[in-house]
Amino acid sequence: MRSIRFLVAGTLAAFAISPAIGADDAALLRQAQQIFRPLPKDMGTADFPVSEERVRLGRLLFFDPRMTLDGNVSCATCHQPSLYGADGLPTSIGVRQRPHPRNAPTVLNAATQFINHWRGDRESVEDQVEQALISAISSGQPNEQAVIARLQGIPGYAALFKAAFPTDIDPLTVKNIAKAIGSYERTLVTPSPFDAYLAGDVNALSAAARAGLETFIRTGCAACHNGAGVGGGMYRKFGVVEDYWIATGSQAIDKGRADVTKDPADLYVFRVASLRNVVMTAPYFHDGSVATLPEAVRVMARLQLGAKLKDSEIDDTVAFLNSLTGDLPADFATAPILPPAAFTMPRP
Amino acid sequence: MRSIRFLVAGTLAAFAISPAIGADDAALLRQAQQIFRPLPKDMGTADFPVSEERVRLGRLLFFDPRMTLDGNVSCATCHQPSLYGADGLPTSIGVRQRPHPRNAPTVLNAATQFINHWRGDRESVEDQVEQALISAISSGQPNEQAVIARLQGIPGYAALFKAAFPTDIDPLTVKNIAKAIGSYERTLVTPSPFDAYLAGDVNALSAAARAGLETFIRTGCAACHNGAGVGGGMYRKFGVVEDYWIATGSQAIDKGRADVTKDPADLYVFRVASLRNVVMTAPYFHDGSVATLPEAVRVMARLQLGAKLKDSEIDDTVAFLNSLTGDLPADFATAPILPPAAFTMPRP
Repeated sequence: MRSIRFLVAGTLAAFAISPAIGADDAALLRQAQQIFRPLPKDMGTADFPVSEERVRLGRLLFFDPRMTLDGNVSCATCHQPSLYGADGLPTSIGVRQRPHPRNAPTVLNAATQFINHWRGDRESVEDQVEQALISAISSGQPNEQAVIARLQGIPGYAALFKAAFPTDIDPLTVKNIAKAIGSYERTLVTPSPFDAYLAGDVNALSAAARAGLETFIRTGCAACHNGAGVGGGMYRKFGVVEDYWIATGSQAIDKGRADVTKDPADLYVFRVASLRNVVMTAPYFHDGSVATLPEAVRVMARLQLGAKLKDSEIDDTVAFLNSLTGDLPADFATAPILPPAAFTMPRP
Repeated sequence: MRSIRFLVAGTLAAFAISPAIGADDAALLRQAQQIFRPLPKDMGTADFPVSEERVRLGRLLFFDPRMTLDGNVSCATCHQPSLYGADGLPTSIGVRQRPHPRNAPTVLNAATQFINHWRGDRESVEDQVEQALISAISSGQPNEQAVIARLQGIPGYAALFKAAFPTDIDPLTVKNIAKAIGSYERTLVTPSPFDAYLAGDVNALSAAARAGLETFIRTGCAACHNGAGVGGGMYRKFGVVEDYWIATGSQAIDKGRADVTKDPADLYVFRVASLRNVVMTAPYFHDGSVATLPEAVRVMARLQLGAKLKDSEIDDTVAFLNSLTGDLPADFATAPILPPAAFTMPRP
C-alpha cells in the first residue's frame, strides 16, 4: 500500500504544471518530463548502499593522497572541488606525470551513469576506484597490499573502517576502500534549476533556457542525452555523420569501445557523456579537444545529427545547459581533515 | 589619544587572569604571556594589506592549477586543506615530478614568520609566490608572460584583477598575482585554545597541556619557539649539541642558510619553524625526516638543548602542542569555484 501511494504521488508530482503558463510551455515541460528525470536524493543501490559511516570514511579516502605511490595523487587530483569535480585538463596527468589516455569526467553525479569510463570498462564507481587503486597511471602502487600498508600507517583509519564495515573481521581491504569511496561518491548529487523545472516550476528556466531545451529536443540531442544524468545512459558512436577527429582537431584517433570489446561494431563508440554541470567542466569530449561549450554544441550537432545550428540556437542551448549546473555538495566543497600519518612517505 | 587607549586596553587584556586559579597556574600564565602572543585577526601590513577584493581573487588563484606548466599544480598542491595547509610528504613534489629540496611548511599563519622558506630566502609570502610562479620546480613556467597568458585565457579573471587593483592600467601582472595570493594567505589565521589561554582563560588548556607548556618553557624550547607563531621569528643552527642528521636519520646533509649567504657562520642554520598546527603537519623538520611529533620533540630537546626528556614530559609537551591546533579558516577549508577556461591546456 505504501509503495502504491508513493508511486501515485510521484506520478502526480512529475506531471504537476503550474496553471498560469502558456500551452507551448506546458507542452515543452510535459515532453521534458517524458525524456528526463530529476536527480535522485542520492545514488545508493542495494548492492552499494550509502551509509553515514561509509560516507565519512570514503570522503577522507577520496581526499587522501597517501595511498598512492609517491603520496601526491588522490581522487581529488583529477576530481577537484574547485574545478567542479574535474581537472580542467584535456587529458589527465597521473602519478609521476604518467598520462591518462582520456579526459577526466566530473565525479559529480557520476554514479547516475549506467557504466563508467569513456569506454565502459568500469562497471560502477566502486569498480573504478578498485581498479584505480592499483592502476599504474592513477595510483602507481604495485599491488593491493601496498595500498593497505599505507593506510595501516595512519592510525586514525582503523576505527573508521571498523565502523563502516562492522561485520568484517578484517575491514581494511581494497574492496572496502572502493565501497567507502563509492558510497561517498553516491552522495555527490547536484540538483539544479532543471530539476525544479522538471518538478513543474516552468520559471526555474529562463525563456532562453526553455528555447534551448526545445532546440535540444527538436534537434535530437535528447535522443542520447536524456534521463537523470542528461546523458550517461548508453553507448554511441562519436562521429555518425563525419569523422570526429576532423571536426574536433583531436591529436590522436581513439578507437573507443572497440579496443575493449574487439568488436568492429564498437569502433569509435563511447559512453554518452552526462551533461550535468557541463558548463563548469571544460574542456570537452573524451580527449578534451574542444575548449568551449558553444563549440562543443556546434560540433556535436554537426557530427552526430548532421545539423547546422544557428548561432542563436547554440546560445539558447548553452542557456539550457547552464540550467544543469547545481551547487557543489557541501561535503565535497569542504575538505575533510585527514588523520596524520605515523610514517614518513618514501621519497620517489 | 586613540592609540594610547588601545595600548592600555591591550596591556590590560594581555595580563587579565581569571581570579579562581592557583598561584602556580597564574605564574605560568604570566610567563607565557611574556613569551608568546595571541595570533592577530589577520596578517595584513601597510605594504601588503588585506582587502576583500584581493582576498577573493587570491583565493581563486591559490587553488587554480592552470597557471603552471602542465596545469596540474597549484599552491594547494603542496598546501592542501585536507592536510592542514601542508602536503604530508617529507619533501614536496613539484611539476613533472621535480623534487622540491625541502619540506612544505603549512601555509596557515605563514605570514606571521619574519622571513619565508627554511633558509630565509623569501622575504614575504608575496615574494614566495612571485618566485614560485616562475620557479622550475613549483610552476615550470619559463617566464612571467607564460603565466599571464594562461590567466588571460580564463575570461572570469579580468574583472577580478580590475577590482583588486583598481588604479592599475594593466592589473594582470605577476606582481599583482603575488599580492592577491599573499593578501589571501594573510587571512589564513587559526586561533586555537592556546590563544584563549593567553587571553587569560587558564582552563582553555588541560592540566597536561599546562604541564607541557611548563616543560616547553623550562627546557628552553621557548627560547626559539616564541611569539605569535610559537616559532618563525629567528634563525637558529639545527644541531647545536650534536649533528642533526645523526639523530634524524636524514638522507642528505643540508647546509641550510650557508648555501644562501655563503657565510660559514650560517652552516646548518634554518629559520625556526612555527609550531602552530604542528600536530596536523607531519612529517617534521626541513627534510621531513621524522615521522611523529613525540619523536620530533625528543630529537629537538636532545639536539638543540642537550636535554633528555622523560616520556611523561614528551607526552605533556605534545599535549601543549595540541593546544596550538586551530580550526581551518572557512575560506581555506572550502574550495572556491574557479572560472572555466576558454582554451585547452597544452598536453605535456
